[in-house]
Amino acid sequence: MPSLSLTTLDHVPMVQSGDDLSAVLLTALEEQGLTLQPDDTLVLAQKIVSKAEGCIRNLEDITPSAQAVELGQETAKDPRLVQAILDESTEVVRKRKGVLVVRHKNGWVMAQAGIDQSNVEGAHKGNILLLPKDPDGSATKLRTALEERTGVAPAIVIADSFGRPFRNGTTGIAIGAAGLESFTDIRGETDLFGRELKVSTVAHADEIASTASLLMGQGSEATPVVLIRGLARSPHLPAKALIRPIEDDLFR
Amino acid sequence: MPSLSLTTLDHVPMVQSGDDLSAVLLTALEEQGLTLQPDDTLVLAQKIVSKAEGCIRNLEDITPSAQAVELGQETAKDPRLVQAILDESTEVVRKRKGVLVVRHKNGWVMAQAGIDQSNVEGAHKGNILLLPKDPDGSATKLRTALEERTGVAPAIVIADSFGRPFRNGTTGIAIGAAGLESFTDIRGETDLFGRELKVSTVAHADEIASTASLLMGQGSEATPVVLIRGLARSPHLPAKALIRPIEDDLFR
Repeated sequence: MPSLSLTTLDHVPMVQSGDDLSAVLLTALEEQGLTLQPDDTLVLAQKIVSKAEGCIRNLEDITPSAQAVELGQETAKDPRLVQAILDESTEVVRKRKGVLVVRHKNGWVMAQAGIDQSNVEGAHKGNILLLPKDPDGSATKLRTALEERTGVAPAIVIADSFGRPFRNGTTGIAIGAAGLESFTDIRGETDLFGRELKVSTVAHADEIASTASLLMGQGSEATPVVLIRGLARSPHLPAKALIRPIEDDLFR
Repeated sequence: MPSLSLTTLDHVPMVQSGDDLSAVLLTALEEQGLTLQPDDTLVLAQKIVSKAEGCIRNLEDITPSAQAVELGQETAKDPRLVQAILDESTEVVRKRKGVLVVRHKNGWVMAQAGIDQSNVEGAHKGNILLLPKDPDGSATKLRTALEERTGVAPAIVIADSFGRPFRNGTTGIAIGAAGLESFTDIRGETDLFGRELKVSTVAHADEIASTASLLMGQGSEATPVVLIRGLARSPHLPAKALIRPIEDDLFR
């Protein structure tokens, strides 16, 4: 019977800028009596990747432009934060009081360009956390480092929480991935009655991110890494394959 | 350590109109040597619920209106299918060749009003499968029936696959739920540094649906039920709580 198991890593310390995540993960696995296996998938909260990569700015250092001041008034947000959001983005997609949805430079349509102030050390002094510059690259590097240290290359997903049009609440989304097929195209396969499936493309890595999110918690439950065992391994396709091209976007 | 396990039920037969799903599930569990436990969550593919409830129409019986004929030309879809989609919907949200996104009568914004022709017996003769009329109600009834038969009331999620604006591929979505909190509001809780979380509402039941989707498969892998063990139990909130009210909808 196909089955999956999920376990949180319970010994991940507060990650600091410059930390080697492969070392952090291997220590955490070891302290829990776990050994990496080839078909393992490790899901990391975006925050610890951003922290390790030092993707931090401080609001004190930001001078908002006239556009940021105006948008700040419209959205009831700190104009320095708005400037940081604009610096990470290519366009404003939707705005209203309390809401600023943009297209991030990497293509994601998301609130606040993914900039976070919760669970960020020094947030009360103005520190804000940006998304990693190239999360698919971060995932690939981490996977390679783990393979170099252990001989085993797990799949890696870097997960964030996104809001969505039409639905309340956030779900886990893959912003980076390595060693698995982020997006699965099963068009051309047949159904139980031999009828060809017309539209069947599955956001596999997003579903993995949502799965891990069930255990990660969002508040003070500091469980930023989840180990998944039992996922079928498939060819590599990065998480950027999950971003719908602008020209196909009916909701821009 | 928090952990989850997921298992497919491998002995679920082809479900027919009128079948008692509680009996089907208990037989399938028994054949696999599994006994329901109070903290179990059962995730069911929408299709078997629709089939059990007889939510089937036949294209041969449908006469398309002038609007359906026109929309059929615009979207390159069978006008009888378009009529069935319109019959299930309150408005057309987006359309173009091959795509017809509507607001379902129950509030979901989704392609094709959720009408499916894959894995439907008799699809070659024109049979189409509609969504259950009241999936939160279906989940509650199933939960009650299981409790009456076994004394144990598992949480129930009825899952479908939805496409999304801005992202490629479908993910599992909860259209019905019972015995769990579909939507979790953790605003007011504090982060690791004691800072209050501003926006932290999590689409818990959607994440559960996506989790199960990892094992269900979409094609000929007939695994329409997944058992999840280890999820924390929380108060009941139906899946309709996941639908964003029209007045809050920035992407209509």
